Amino acid sequence: MNKVSMNSIKITSGGVVAPGGFVAGGVACGVRESATRDLGLLVSEMSGASAAVYTRNAVKAAPLVVTREAVEGGDVRAVVVNSGIANAATGRRGLEDARRMQALAAEALGFAPEEVAVASTGVIGEYLPMDRISAGIEAGVGTLDGDGGSFAEAILTTDTRTKEAAVRVEIGGRNVTVGGTAKGSGMIHPNMGTMLAFLTTDAAVDKGCLQETLSQATERTFNRVTVDGDTSPNDMALLLANGAAGNEPLTFDSADYPVFAEAVEAVMQKLAKEIARDGEGATKLIEVVVEGARDEASAATLAKSIAGSNLVKTAVCGADANWGRVLTAMGYSGAAFDPDGVEIHFGPVRVFADGEPTPHDEAEANATLAGDEVRITVRLREGGASAAAWGCDLTCKYVEINGSYRT
Amino acid sequence: MNKVSMNSIKITSGGVVAPGGFVAGGVACGVRESATRDLGLLVSEMSGASAAVYTRNAVKAAPLVVTREAVEGGDVRAVVVNSGIANAATGRRGLEDARRMQALAAEALGFAPEEVAVASTGVIGEYLPMDRISAGIEAGVGTLDGDGGSFAEAILTTDTRTKEAAVRVEIGGRNVTVGGTAKGSGMIHPNMGTMLAFLTTDAAVDKGCLQETLSQATERTFNRVTVDGDTSPNDMALLLANGAAGNEPLTFDSADYPVFAEAVEAVMQKLAKEIARDGEGATKLIEVVVEGARDEASAATLAKSIAGSNLVKTAVCGADANWGRVLTAMGYSGAAFDPDGVEIHFGPVRVFADGEPTPHDEAEANATLAGDEVRITVRLREGGASAAAWGCDLTCKYVEINGSYRT
Repeated sequence: MNKVSMNSIKITSGGVVAPGGFVAGGVACGVRESATRDLGLLVSEMSGASAAVYTRNAVKAAPLVVTREAVEGGDVRAVVVNSGIANAATGRRGLEDARRMQALAAEALGFAPEEVAVASTGVIGEYLPMDRISAGIEAGVGTLDGDGGSFAEAILTTDTRTKEAAVRVEIGGRNVTVGGTAKGSGMIHPNMGTMLAFLTTDAAVDKGCLQETLSQATERTFNRVTVDGDTSPNDMALLLANGAAGNEPLTFDSADYPVFAEAVEAVMQKLAKEIARDGEGATKLIEVVVEGARDEASAATLAKSIAGSNLVKTAVCGADANWGRVLTAMGYSGAAFDPDGVEIHFGPVRVFADGEPTPHDEAEANATLAGDEVRITVRLREGGASAAAWGCDLTCKYVEINGSYRT
Repeated sequence: MNKVSMNSIKITSGGVVAPGGFVAGGVACGVRESATRDLGLLVSEMSGASAAVYTRNAVKAAPLVVTREAVEGGDVRAVVVNSGIANAATGRRGLEDARRMQALAAEALGFAPEEVAVASTGVIGEYLPMDRISAGIEAGVGTLDGDGGSFAEAILTTDTRTKEAAVRVEIGGRNVTVGGTAKGSGMIHPNMGTMLAFLTTDAAVDKGCLQETLSQATERTFNRVTVDGDTSPNDMALLLANGAAGNEPLTFDSADYPVFAEAVEAVMQKLAKEIARDGEGATKLIEVVVEGARDEASAATLAKSIAGSNLVKTAVCGADANWGRVLTAMGYSGAAFDPDGVEIHFGPVRVFADGEPTPHDEAEANATLAGDEVRITVRLREGGASAAAWGCDLTCKYVEINGSYRT
């Protein structure tokens, strides 16, 4: 978020269908036991470019294998996604199910199978009920005229609310919109998206440029979110660009490329923060900002280590400004820094500087942790780089949710 | 634990004073608010060799700096330790306090300062009340005749019980005893001891050999324990060997060296498991064993990743045999392995093999998680190496303890 003034980026309403030429829908088909929506479809009315990033977990779910083939082999213009069952660790049968899901959606939409991406999220190690998936796809096609909300709902698992974002920018005299929706609440850690995210734009964008834009923005947004240090086998972020805005196709050399890249990052950052805020059992969003680092990578490593520390997270839960845990999390992060050059702030209250505790009003420091947004700022004396990371507090509710997820 | 038959190692009672020539004591001097013991002294009646390992956290507490100087510069024969305040992140004043604590203990015991190691554990970022420490040392000297239990008590913080171990072996026709006591409950993660441990033996051991023995055993015991993924700035394990057994000094070339090394590892393994069992808020000890790995390092990486996963820990808490989380934790561990060659067992119940779920009775698998000791075994098809790691379940109590540690 450094290069372009945020003034040129206008926040707008909606999510994946905010850009022109996209439709989406979602239905309840019975993968999840409750009557909540669990199957979604997202479709571009025209062909375009697509890009994706995937989990770095060595165990990759079947739908990722199928989607990767599609994105690498051609141009994806539709997505079918289910929640409730992750279709991960399901072996050959799981892979066949993912391919069948792709084929069923393609058939229902009148596309070639390789134009359809597949995603799943939910319990690991169970097989998809393919008859229900099939019926869901049939029914889902009839819902492709909504505002994107039912698609946003259909991808949720333990999330308590939908997560949507959209921004508008001007590119080559044309209005270009970037929209997105994401899910993610548990098994969230900075290693790729660690979640599902579907991003759309009506910009025309060169495919290589689109992939690089997504990868870079992922590094600065979804890879900076941590809920519990666990990285799922199903994470995926997919960006579809259909060109409906009518602009000249963007490349890295386009004068307006930075505006587009910032717009994508703005949408993804908003979704990233929403994921952290809606972390399993969470009551607070924690934003950690590290400034004065020698480079962005070490700033990010430090920020993620703080945001990911169970002890920092429980201290925030209990509104205890225990800065020793912040310093400790920095110390084991693996990033090199001089402890004597560290300043730590809870909100506006400085609690540590020059290697020693700063005299401060403890009640005032604790009060900065009382709200539903907590900001911890760390300043180093190493250089000029900075980075943010997002997390949430660790509560009893997290333990309850995950002690009985399957039962 | 591979080289020597466990038959030659006899478990015995007691802790740090089980070996000949050691005395220990502990008092309540008011560092902790309650009237519990918070200052301990451990003394060898004769000079000998000493070895230590320290936290890998980049932030190191003041007492570690002082102890490292003593151990590297000569032969430590006494330890003074307090609980309640960690004397970490306390800058120059903290370092002066640690040196003063060393000097006070040395004076009270009639030793040179460099013969005394210093350790602290507790809240980070507060200064030691030196008047109370001073009075505690004076009083502590009068308690140096107990069974080691009051020393074991004085080093505890959120621990719910003392942790002691001792074994006896025969070396060169002499009875040699190795004993130890440890504390550790939160901020526990496999990166050095991540705790305090004091180990004693009446064997005569060459100093370089003693250090290497401690370092190797640490790698296989204390570095395999995880409670919450946090590594404290105060971790330290210290091993004193006073030669009271009268054996020929041991070196790596001694015929009996493997027996001694196994004895040290046996004591440390017992303490490591006790620390995991007494993890903050824990109700269960989790032992993860990885077999068939290409080397011990990757087996250990996998075992620690499983034992450290918040999602595995909450599943164990809820007695939910959610093996997908085990596989997931392996996948993001960083160790390379073929997921199709993985077998996962909860207790005796096989739940996953050949890349696919194994049909099994789910109630039976869940039942293996109902007791207070849980064993998860993973078999790979990569080679012949194995490793164990120890952790505990994650409960609401952990959140409660750490949301209000300082208040």
